[in-house]
Amino acid sequence: MTANSPMGAPRCDRTAAWSALQGHFEAHGRDLDLREAFTRDPARFAHLSLEAPEVFADLSKNRWDLATQRFLLELARECRLEARRDALLAGARINATEGRAVLHTALRAPRGAGPLSDEVHAVLDAFLAFADQVRASAGAPYTDIVNIGIGGSDLGPQMAVPALEPYLHRGLRYHFVSNVDGSDITAVLRGLKPQHTLFIIASKTFTTQETMANAHAARAWFDAGMPAGADRAKHFIGVTTNLKAAAEFGITTTFGFWDWVGGRYSLWSAIGLPIAIAVGSEHFRAMLAGAHAMDRHFAEAPLEKNLPVQLGLLDVWYRNFHGFGSRSVAPYHQGLKRFAAYLQQLEMESNGKCVDMDGQAVPFGTSPVVWGEAGTNGQHAYFQMLHQGTDVIPVEFIAVKRAAHDLPDQQTKLLANCLAQSQALMLGKTAAAAATEMAPTASPDFDRARLAQHRSFPGNRPSTTLVLEALTPRSLGALIALYEHRVFVSGALWGINSFDQWGVELGKALCNALLPRMDSRDVSGLDGSTAGLLQRLTS
Amino acid sequence: MTANSPMGAPRCDRTAAWSALQGHFEAHGRDLDLREAFTRDPARFAHLSLEAPEVFADLSKNRWDLATQRFLLELARECRLEARRDALLAGARINATEGRAVLHTALRAPRGAGPLSDEVHAVLDAFLAFADQVRASAGAPYTDIVNIGIGGSDLGPQMAVPALEPYLHRGLRYHFVSNVDGSDITAVLRGLKPQHTLFIIASKTFTTQETMANAHAARAWFDAGMPAGADRAKHFIGVTTNLKAAAEFGITTTFGFWDWVGGRYSLWSAIGLPIAIAVGSEHFRAMLAGAHAMDRHFAEAPLEKNLPVQLGLLDVWYRNFHGFGSRSVAPYHQGLKRFAAYLQQLEMESNGKCVDMDGQAVPFGTSPVVWGEAGTNGQHAYFQMLHQGTDVIPVEFIAVKRAAHDLPDQQTKLLANCLAQSQALMLGKTAAAAATEMAPTASPDFDRARLAQHRSFPGNRPSTTLVLEALTPRSLGALIALYEHRVFVSGALWGINSFDQWGVELGKALCNALLPRMDSRDVSGLDGSTAGLLQRLTS
Repeated sequence: MTANSPMGAPRCDRTAAWSALQGHFEAHGRDLDLREAFTRDPARFAHLSLEAPEVFADLSKNRWDLATQRFLLELARECRLEARRDALLAGARINATEGRAVLHTALRAPRGAGPLSDEVHAVLDAFLAFADQVRASAGAPYTDIVNIGIGGSDLGPQMAVPALEPYLHRGLRYHFVSNVDGSDITAVLRGLKPQHTLFIIASKTFTTQETMANAHAARAWFDAGMPAGADRAKHFIGVTTNLKAAAEFGITTTFGFWDWVGGRYSLWSAIGLPIAIAVGSEHFRAMLAGAHAMDRHFAEAPLEKNLPVQLGLLDVWYRNFHGFGSRSVAPYHQGLKRFAAYLQQLEMESNGKCVDMDGQAVPFGTSPVVWGEAGTNGQHAYFQMLHQGTDVIPVEFIAVKRAAHDLPDQQTKLLANCLAQSQALMLGKTAAAAATEMAPTASPDFDRARLAQHRSFPGNRPSTTLVLEALTPRSLGALIALYEHRVFVSGALWGINSFDQWGVELGKALCNALLPRMDSRDVSGLDGSTAGLLQRLTS
Repeated sequence: MTANSPMGAPRCDRTAAWSALQGHFEAHGRDLDLREAFTRDPARFAHLSLEAPEVFADLSKNRWDLATQRFLLELARECRLEARRDALLAGARINATEGRAVLHTALRAPRGAGPLSDEVHAVLDAFLAFADQVRASAGAPYTDIVNIGIGGSDLGPQMAVPALEPYLHRGLRYHFVSNVDGSDITAVLRGLKPQHTLFIIASKTFTTQETMANAHAARAWFDAGMPAGADRAKHFIGVTTNLKAAAEFGITTTFGFWDWVGGRYSLWSAIGLPIAIAVGSEHFRAMLAGAHAMDRHFAEAPLEKNLPVQLGLLDVWYRNFHGFGSRSVAPYHQGLKRFAAYLQQLEMESNGKCVDMDGQAVPFGTSPVVWGEAGTNGQHAYFQMLHQGTDVIPVEFIAVKRAAHDLPDQQTKLLANCLAQSQALMLGKTAAAAATEMAPTASPDFDRARLAQHRSFPGNRPSTTLVLEALTPRSLGALIALYEHRVFVSGALWGINSFDQWGVELGKALCNALLPRMDSRDVSGLDGSTAGLLQRLTS
């Protein structure tokens, strides 16, 4: 316990509960067989499933049990998780390395209810009014909205807009430009008309290399395509805290946010403007309300019924005891096709750290790799490995009960597939069972007993299933907030700062040092590989 | 060595070279420091980089050296890799569990040059002529091409069409429907006109659940939007081996392929039709020629200069000696935004296996998790974890020297970022160095020495950089073929069958068993979790 340890709380591995968990893992955890566990406890599903706002979670197909949960809750208590959660929500400067509060929850609190409510709601009202105004004017002048931003200024809107496809304004098209690669903006601008295009330049500092390069390319394209004297300020708006730089760029309409909004937690702020334009202020407020409902659940539910807490504890159990290095996310909804990409930033940028708050190297794993594609697509790609690969990879299924389309038969098939996959991962199939079946594509020349081995499945592979009643602005908001808090929970136990990102600085600095060399071709002092590549790429 | 061991070759772990590699790893591999290695050997870049058709590879920032390569080559020889490669290319039935040859290389051999050339070129000529005919008629009747397929009948075209964006016919739009989730096709059809839409129904068997559900939805949509008696056969074509089922569906134009074309190796066949329509027959043939050039390299280059072989050996070294569980792919080109998703099927479905050809459980890791997004986007999402996370994750950069757009400044920035990232991963930064720098966003209240720890980077993190001169149909073909052969190499050493996919069968069977229960709500005999979820999802 040192000055920087949050609230004097110990790091997870320096607790009595950690040692107890190690013993429990050796005795009951490593070899827990899910099939036997369901037989032993007919109420296992009831015991290990949870209701939270908008999200029901079945945690029973995971390799833990009520005893594991008790040990993990003890760990949470020793690490003073509740007090630290309260500090987060109260706006303490828990991002200590940067001396900042972490208040994305304030962005979705009702008017008058959270910290900084006046400022938050003033900006919210302003950008939602603007969004509704753009919607009302669809077709004249605007037909196309182009968001230019990267990372946290891109991934949230890019994920949420397709997720809310049934709610989109049909008179507008939505585009996202992020990559500094000129092919990105070139492909988007091809076919657009400057007089009908609204560019949103989203950059907290208004200095992000990629975003500024693309903003300048967009401005040049606009100027080239419009008569002299055209009102450019009607076609470029800014979401930034740097009003001065935006004004110098020629932007007069800006919406701000604050240093206590991290990029990867910013879609609730004016960074969400493309979402607000796409679905309208009412639906945007519903998304905020869904997130706020999850915030209240996180703040108030007892730890044993607190879904973000339980998921965060499971993450620690899997990463640090079972040793699983990745988690696959499988949203069974095509609208969530970019959800895993969004979570990659949320989780891996938050918890991909190797020193604790005190600056000491942690002797355990932190963020796993998070990856996945929408189901059922993943089944026809990498699910082979999930079922029969050599590594155990926990899968997180997201099922949505009610569809927004009128193809009920396809919805039934979708849900049956989702259930069947978690069932198959758990049940597996013995070689003896495989030997009794016909396999139409099997070679008659291949030894039958050996073939049965190829067609057997180890099973006992864990998964979580989250269930939404429908994919709506409200449930999407709750779902994202659930993941945000879960990442806080594991990060808090690991004793790391989930809210800085020093790991992106070195690459930026080295890029700036390399840029003049790309012209001069000076490779002096560079390592042999970087020198050789630079010469090849600039020859 | 048993009957099913390919050509009597031993599995990798039963060779003398494997034991030698274990000793080498303990003595020189585990602790190899890349920074020292470059200092020790000024010619390291020259020694550990390779030219292959269309692709230059810098392998020098990997945690191996010439001694490691020698041991790995010895392993390849003991496992009779050359003979097995020759068997692959000659059309031996190396997919033994299904008794099939594996001849995607025949699809790109010049006329008269490969096995089965007459059949291959007859179909190729036919579907390319059709593609050019569709292109010539762009606008009347066709404006929109909708490919309906999943897995191998989707991922190849869906990846290649944006990759070749500068080559696309501008009079047509390209859509991909794959998911059985009705939101997928509903979102695509919204805004299309049946009289201007061409549907390609791509399914080897014409029985794939997802594809058939979507095909029927498309047909119903077409029939509802067109006058009675409209010529539906002009708007639906099939890519399938099941002509009878396609005819029953109402399709008269079909292009076939063969059981020796695996789904994940099929974009070279008529499955590539959407690509051919998008870029035209000439560019499609260039893509085949690029792949064929890589095939010749794989067939002919000595193992020590053979790029797919070297990459496959590196994969084995990383997976089985260093124990790395995933590999991140970072294509620095926005057109390759779906390349990692494509590779997920190619690699994880091919090599995500846990029994060898003999049906014995393998005691080592096989396919790692392959994941990633386009650079520079990834830098603003998960690169934090690559730099400062607790796990070492090898990164594979793909740099493209010449851009197809006219934003040269952005191209320079893109390439400088790519170089800077591999440099940063390797070089790292000590806390002492961090302590000498200003960090503008650092908290003045946070202990300076501790902050330097937060801002330090372990370094010595490995990466490969592949360089293409430009992203063209030819280079894309070569790049994909490079990955195909690399997967073959590691799979061959591991002794598994890279060409079957029994691991997808169980989920299909359980889905079929669950489907009637979704109506009846009968949960008898189900595990408690599946029963509970089914009840909730059908209530």
